[in-house]
Amino acid sequence: MSEGFFNSKWVTPPADYIENDPKELASGFVASGIPCGLKGDGKTDLGLIHCAADEVVSAILLTRNAAAAAPIRVCRDQLDQEAVRSCVINSGNANAATGEQGIRDALEFRQGIADRLDLNSELIAVAETGVIGVPLDMDAIRSGFDGLVENLATDGGVSFCEAIMTTDKSPKQCSITIEGVTMSAQAKGAGMIEPGFATMLCFVQTDALVDDADTHLRAAAAESFERITVDGQMSTNDTILFQASGLSGKPLPEGLLEAVLLQLAIEVVADGEGATRVGRALVTGAKDDAEADLVARKIANSPLVKTALLGKDPNWGRIAQAAGMALAGDDIGELGPDVIQAEDLASDAVEAELSLQLDRGEGRSHIYFSDLTHEYIVINAEYTT
Amino acid sequence: MSEGFFNSKWVTPPADYIENDPKELASGFVASGIPCGLKGDGKTDLGLIHCAADEVVSAILLTRNAAAAAPIRVCRDQLDQEAVRSCVINSGNANAATGEQGIRDALEFRQGIADRLDLNSELIAVAETGVIGVPLDMDAIRSGFDGLVENLATDGGVSFCEAIMTTDKSPKQCSITIEGVTMSAQAKGAGMIEPGFATMLCFVQTDALVDDADTHLRAAAAESFERITVDGQMSTNDTILFQASGLSGKPLPEGLLEAVLLQLAIEVVADGEGATRVGRALVTGAKDDAEADLVARKIANSPLVKTALLGKDPNWGRIAQAAGMALAGDDIGELGPDVIQAEDLASDAVEAELSLQLDRGEGRSHIYFSDLTHEYIVINAEYTT
Repeated sequence: MSEGFFNSKWVTPPADYIENDPKELASGFVASGIPCGLKGDGKTDLGLIHCAADEVVSAILLTRNAAAAAPIRVCRDQLDQEAVRSCVINSGNANAATGEQGIRDALEFRQGIADRLDLNSELIAVAETGVIGVPLDMDAIRSGFDGLVENLATDGGVSFCEAIMTTDKSPKQCSITIEGVTMSAQAKGAGMIEPGFATMLCFVQTDALVDDADTHLRAAAAESFERITVDGQMSTNDTILFQASGLSGKPLPEGLLEAVLLQLAIEVVADGEGATRVGRALVTGAKDDAEADLVARKIANSPLVKTALLGKDPNWGRIAQAAGMALAGDDIGELGPDVIQAEDLASDAVEAELSLQLDRGEGRSHIYFSDLTHEYIVINAEYTT
Repeated sequence: MSEGFFNSKWVTPPADYIENDPKELASGFVASGIPCGLKGDGKTDLGLIHCAADEVVSAILLTRNAAAAAPIRVCRDQLDQEAVRSCVINSGNANAATGEQGIRDALEFRQGIADRLDLNSELIAVAETGVIGVPLDMDAIRSGFDGLVENLATDGGVSFCEAIMTTDKSPKQCSITIEGVTMSAQAKGAGMIEPGFATMLCFVQTDALVDDADTHLRAAAAESFERITVDGQMSTNDTILFQASGLSGKPLPEGLLEAVLLQLAIEVVADGEGATRVGRALVTGAKDDAEADLVARKIANSPLVKTALLGKDPNWGRIAQAAGMALAGDDIGELGPDVIQAEDLASDAVEAELSLQLDRGEGRSHIYFSDLTHEYIVINAEYTT
């Protein structure tokens, strides 16, 4: 991969961009990150992102998991999703499977910040990640209220990103400027702070004028965070928050949000639990895009394909089997190397493309996935409670 | 687990059974197994099961994989499925993704036996397992035609079972008699002879009078082989063949077929690739059985639950997350230890029961699954082509 933020071969960087220090937030935004003791060892585990501009527009995407965590329920039911001004976050505890107390704790968390910022609490989102089934240590959370607000700064992006990390090996963040418009973003990936389950969080700020934040975000997420898999497990806490201050007075540069989200999504896969390589499963010639998506997901989630990616084994038979399973009950013939390209699996490159050409129509889709490694098993089997 | 064939706590053995040497086939059946060179090292890799009685009734279940292998296509399209008299099998090569040549080879394989047994070839099934994408070595196959027929014997069960094994650590076979009715069976599980994909084969013979073999087999398989998962991957070659000679003149003892198939299915899980433990995910209180089945399968196939089984980690949060993912878009609240039993995960027993009690209706289901281990990754990533 090349230097700089946009380093995946699958990402088309926007034209004429300038890469800023990732700590620099888009105009109108301030952020902070401080330690409060949830993670211990003085690690940053509490964060706040805030839009100080007169106007803010926003959109938020939340996990569809039917056993969603308390912060998801608060954001779903008690948040003005189109005008989110701030978001409080903590790592070290997902506040999931914590029942009514979890809801009360999430509400108290944001109320503490609402009081200090003199905001209606329904303008403040909550996102949490970490161990599940354990009540939040509210004494620790409360101890950080003043510090979070006092430390808010226009160059708080890196501190904020630190605050959302769990077992991520490196921060996933950027600050990009194109013709006077800046977009800053911070994400965390699939890692466990303790045995629990993986959580993905992503925050994006821009000073562009955005008229339909929800449409923009959904379209960009559909091509990025909704196309990745590490272990096929949908988390209880996944959240993506997009906020725009409009202070640049200019529209969103074409392709910027899409490129930023795709690069971050691929970084989440590359830093997935135990991951050493990233594959992209491309399926063409399906009856429609939905069918192509189904087949690509079965390929990307097959432990046989994932171990072949690790083992650098160009085993096209495993791709044929997964595709045949995806379309079980139908008949697609015996797929062979004339329609399956798997050579990239054997390459030394981190990024490997594999593709399957069906002969059923014009549908196409692709899914990014990590390999399945010994380290995944060490992380999830050997670090027991 | 206890001694003897019926050693799983989840199997209810039929009443008053006698366990015979597994080599002894049900009356009317003969079988053989010989080496022909496909697996090398003189290993048995060619087999034949044959019903020599005047009448035979049969039923066969074949994989629904849309990229099914040649032997599946032959059995689907060119076999009298209700009167299968014989089945030829080989291990070492799945004859999958071998195109038209594969079909011709499978047909030639059974024709060679049909000629020697003086049978219509449409009464002979074909089952194959092993490496995929490699043409069958027909010289090796042909070299075994005479030997297969010459070695047919009423005590050929063990040799036949050897012939279907690939990387199975132990044979899965039995011969059970109840009040004059005998049932013999041979199965192989999810193993790789070379990197390819797992195949499950199972053969059951009885001398009971069976009037609706297909109904019996489907019902028993629905509660056994259709309720297991090792890695969630549907093979291109899965086959279950049930044959009845009727020579005992008695009906099938109640529960016999069900108990035999369930014990064999659990053995396939226990001997799954790299497996060290067997879990059973039980879901009750779903809207209906289909919903319970969906949830149980998501739990059983979650790599987080499978690594928890390995790590003896009673991590109920992973069960809650998988259930929430199964019902994504719905809301089932935050599931906790009041409705999830996961203590068995932490036990030293090989068999672990975990359960989830939903509050949506009367639906229930359960799925048997193996743990996910380092050995699975070694088998599938490190033994490359």
